Amino acid sequence: MDTVPSPLAPETIVTPAPVAGVRLATRACGVRYRDRTDVLLALFDPGTTVAGVLTQSATRSAPVEWCAAGLRGGAARALVVNSGNANAFTGLRGVSSVENIAAAAAAVAGCKPEEVFVSSTGTIGEFLPDARITGPLPEMAAAARPDAWVEAARAIMTTDTYPKTATSQCRIGDAVVTLSGIAKGSGMIAPDMATMLAYVATDAALPPEVLKALLVPAADASFNSITVDGDTSTSDTLLLFATGKADHPPVTSADDPAQASFRAALDALLLDLAHQVVRDGEGASRFVEIRVTGAETDRAARRIGLTIGNSPLVKTAIAGADANWGRIVMAVGKAGEKADRDRLAIHIGGARVCESGLAVPDYDETPVAAHMQGREILIEVDVGVGSGRATVWTCDLTHGYIDINADYRT
Amino acid sequence: MDTVPSPLAPETIVTPAPVAGVRLATRACGVRYRDRTDVLLALFDPGTTVAGVLTQSATRSAPVEWCAAGLRGGAARALVVNSGNANAFTGLRGVSSVENIAAAAAAVAGCKPEEVFVSSTGTIGEFLPDARITGPLPEMAAAARPDAWVEAARAIMTTDTYPKTATSQCRIGDAVVTLSGIAKGSGMIAPDMATMLAYVATDAALPPEVLKALLVPAADASFNSITVDGDTSTSDTLLLFATGKADHPPVTSADDPAQASFRAALDALLLDLAHQVVRDGEGASRFVEIRVTGAETDRAARRIGLTIGNSPLVKTAIAGADANWGRIVMAVGKAGEKADRDRLAIHIGGARVCESGLAVPDYDETPVAAHMQGREILIEVDVGVGSGRATVWTCDLTHGYIDINADYRT
Repeated sequence: MDTVPSPLAPETIVTPAPVAGVRLATRACGVRYRDRTDVLLALFDPGTTVAGVLTQSATRSAPVEWCAAGLRGGAARALVVNSGNANAFTGLRGVSSVENIAAAAAAVAGCKPEEVFVSSTGTIGEFLPDARITGPLPEMAAAARPDAWVEAARAIMTTDTYPKTATSQCRIGDAVVTLSGIAKGSGMIAPDMATMLAYVATDAALPPEVLKALLVPAADASFNSITVDGDTSTSDTLLLFATGKADHPPVTSADDPAQASFRAALDALLLDLAHQVVRDGEGASRFVEIRVTGAETDRAARRIGLTIGNSPLVKTAIAGADANWGRIVMAVGKAGEKADRDRLAIHIGGARVCESGLAVPDYDETPVAAHMQGREILIEVDVGVGSGRATVWTCDLTHGYIDINADYRT
Repeated sequence: MDTVPSPLAPETIVTPAPVAGVRLATRACGVRYRDRTDVLLALFDPGTTVAGVLTQSATRSAPVEWCAAGLRGGAARALVVNSGNANAFTGLRGVSSVENIAAAAAAVAGCKPEEVFVSSTGTIGEFLPDARITGPLPEMAAAARPDAWVEAARAIMTTDTYPKTATSQCRIGDAVVTLSGIAKGSGMIAPDMATMLAYVATDAALPPEVLKALLVPAADASFNSITVDGDTSTSDTLLLFATGKADHPPVTSADDPAQASFRAALDALLLDLAHQVVRDGEGASRFVEIRVTGAETDRAARRIGLTIGNSPLVKTAIAGADANWGRIVMAVGKAGEKADRDRLAIHIGGARVCESGLAVPDYDETPVAAHMQGREILIEVDVGVGSGRATVWTCDLTHGYIDINADYRT
């Protein structure tokens, strides 16, 4: 697709390091798009464990329900992702499509279908032409390579304007461990709808329950702390695969001190991918970090931050480079969490604009105005009731969002 | 203000009937605007009772807190409303401003300050020049008349493009009873922020607790069932005054059958005013009614409806005349209420587009496309789990909203 990258895109696309035990293949299968890859097959060596975080939507898609069942087994040997069609709201036929894909991938991977994970992203309400995916799987398996991470990120894009990749290394005991990951998403995506997907693989050797205990808080602080338009997909999926190829002492608990470095690396990698999703937000012209302190709990702080980050009035003010703290106060008020109006303090770009329930008298607007003209906006809000804190990220709401989303579908 | 009325504005501005025991006066006091009225004084005869519904915001303004205290007394003799300045986030000085206004109005009305109700709407975070309001109050009181309802509606406008009025008559026993009301609001309003205010007066003779029992469900089905952008003001205020001038048998309970006609008239009047607010939604080009059925409870149905009505993706699709039911499914899914994906049914403009979790095969798109081009959009969603139902109203999200809200403040 010939799309202009978001003005907030990273300057370079990182090439993730190969992960021992993982091979990747992509292909243009013509699910919906022409002249681009649209299917990803990932193969994992025997012994790979898996954990995941899935959309909380009450109308989640058949592939998401399939993954939920697979996660209970905790073992993974293959992942198949297609773009262009979300296989959502497709009833029993949608379930059959997932089963067909899982069976075909199990045949090429030599595993049980329940060790195959399946995701679909793109238009909803249309039947998935699954034979276009299952047919090429044997050839794809034969061509799979350890170093195809950027191609993998490209194959799962829908209206993303750039592929999203990240990689890092850390230590568990004396062993060097690799983490590599990809993501897609740019809000709930036009022309129909889409989704946020992220897949991370590591060669660490971790039982599924440890993986899950690491993944859930990392997801809360990253993918669950970003918002583009507050809309939640029927297909959001985050999976973490661990091949066990790294030679480190056994880890049986997420709290094991040997894990500290891995935990930090995982947290940072997920945050990096989540930020890339926000930076590709539909129509985004500014990347916004909102730090909330002084809330009753961390959870309350996150809810306040997301309420600020989802407020159309806050987001349009930022688009207009307007340091409109009144709208931030309004958003704090509607979040449904405790806040002390008369102790509320707001900093924009590091400059204090409100304190103790009042505008700071005669504050110097020049640096604040200059900050608001930039690409990176920092808003700090202390709500004055406790020690809960959270940081969330969003983008502004511009004419570009309307252009993308109000286009006629046909 | 020279503003072009919303394309969804009513064709005529209704002139509310005088209500015995109510006199109104407006004046250009120069609170912020020039060359237009910006203060309303309403005077109520002795014996007037009052009930209200106030914003749930945790950062509500000093005038709202003043009204909350006054409502506990249940008696009203005066109302003062100014536009142009919301007196919100103004600390102790804001509280003093409210006290000054209440004291001055009490002096002209010959009542206690706690029988005076005060509202302010407009810019937040700026100190209210209350002397500009209190100074003219004696002259305003002398000039107050029973028939100044439309002027009253104009004086409380901020970025509203037309005054919002409604009136009706009903019977309690054999007595004819009048209800007249005004409202303002067009979303959370630019350039800074604003609010939704509504004031209704009747000559019925009703104790405050009966008024409240009637007002709360009527507000839930009207003002609490509309949304423009999901943003909640620090100042939202709805007050219902009853002067007791009508000669009807005493009513001591909201369930009294003698009340049925009054209840229906109040419900209809609030709904009329609430619809006028939506029709003045910033940038609105289409008025949207969303009927949700089959939810677990009525409350769940309302939450699902408001989630659909607040979804930027749904609202931009409507702006683009796109019958994008996939986005409606997505919004149902994220509402946090029970829904059965495989029993979900959606009608647009009366045409069934989805049923049993699937697109209706080969439905005729022509009437649906024609409906989406209109000014009045009807969306019906059955979520397939129970008998809860609710109707909510919203407008579309257009470039006009961004234009209005992303303008530089200075």
